[in-house]
Amino acid sequence: MFISFEGIDGSGKSTQARLLAESLRAEGREVVPTREPGGSPGAEQIRRLLVEGRADRWSPETELLLFTAARRDHLERTIRPALDRGAWVVTDRFADSTRVYQGVARADLAQKVEDLHRLMIGVEPDRTFVIDLDPAQALARATGRALQQGRSGDAGPSLASGTGTAAPRHGNAPSPETAAEDRFEGMGLGFQQRLRDGFRALALAHPARVRLIDGSGPAEAVAARVRAAL
Amino acid sequence: MFISFEGIDGSGKSTQARLLAESLRAEGREVVPTREPGGSPGAEQIRRLLVEGRADRWSPETELLLFTAARRDHLERTIRPALDRGAWVVTDRFADSTRVYQGVARADLAQKVEDLHRLMIGVEPDRTFVIDLDPAQALARATGRALQQGRSGDAGPSLASGTGTAAPRHGNAPSPETAAEDRFEGMGLGFQQRLRDGFRALALAHPARVRLIDGSGPAEAVAARVRAAL
Repeated sequence: MFISFEGIDGSGKSTQARLLAESLRAEGREVVPTREPGGSPGAEQIRRLLVEGRADRWSPETELLLFTAARRDHLERTIRPALDRGAWVVTDRFADSTRVYQGVARADLAQKVEDLHRLMIGVEPDRTFVIDLDPAQALARATGRALQQGRSGDAGPSLASGTGTAAPRHGNAPSPETAAEDRFEGMGLGFQQRLRDGFRALALAHPARVRLIDGSGPAEAVAARVRAAL
Repeated sequence: MFISFEGIDGSGKSTQARLLAESLRAEGREVVPTREPGGSPGAEQIRRLLVEGRADRWSPETELLLFTAARRDHLERTIRPALDRGAWVVTDRFADSTRVYQGVARADLAQKVEDLHRLMIGVEPDRTFVIDLDPAQALARATGRALQQGRSGDAGPSLASGTGTAAPRHGNAPSPETAAEDRFEGMGLGFQQRLRDGFRALALAHPARVRLIDGSGPAEAVAARVRAAL
């Protein structure tokens, strides 16, 4: 099985991806946890090109090509070999992130995103869990996490977008307190709300593959909802 | 005018691109000489990803996406701004290199190459000059040049291909004497012959845009043929 987790930043999707991988592993399955952008040595190097430098370093179209190159490498070097040997793959973000961020930031490119995906990737996860959370709650969670862990190395939501147009970058390592807040304030809660709407629309459009999971409450409660949906 | 030069390695196309740029400049025109892969700061960084590491570091599909990302950046940051202000652009290689190398190395990807070009680039030069030379003569010329200039930094023909499948890489700086020879021997004269056939077929398929130029004889004589064709 190839499973992806999607959702806005601070929704808890990375935690849920990890918890599902752990619980599948506890059942004796081989599980390969991975993430995008990145997920293979080559894709991580392309990710670095996407993270470093000014926000306008690449046009949305060039960035989309780089995201797709990274995804192709991730697919070939990590995802496909794992699936071929019978392992489960649980990825934190896949092509839906590009679709949804792109749909909000550069709706005019939506058809190019689909055409490029069909041409060069052509694969969807077997199941996609969208962890759905109110952006204000997600902000509180992301801020708390930043305070706890000082995770200023996180590249922020721009990386998931496939377009850097609307996304601020934090190349100069802001303090942990401001990192998560800046990411949200730079994008705006309104932008996060449109992303959330985009993920919800995705679940409606692909009911067989994409499941909307209520992301509120303790992580264990959300994990139980994911397991039930699986 | 947007002009590209194409041809097998050692055909003299880089020299001809330079000579044409010089002669246009002598007429008082603004000329922007450029090259692929590369031609803009971002594209040069993507070029580095393509040059470094093992030959099988990227699959042909991933490499094709990286070439296209570099070309998109080159187009947006160097070619289009120059054309918009009325300058002439003379590039050493453009999309035809990908088409022809790909056509020889991975003919099964030819349709993907065209579809990706149409989707994400969509631009052709106004005129393309294919410098046509017998591979044995080109080898002699490339070997002589290597002996003279010690140009071991050249990334070799694999970079023009859009596929690294058949192309050796020289990450470990071979001696100048062996560099050019290796590039040919690694590919084989037969491979170079198929490339030459590919470029000639391109000229036949696009008679309005692509002109075949006899590349034999002194550089000045070839340059005169280019000027006459222009």
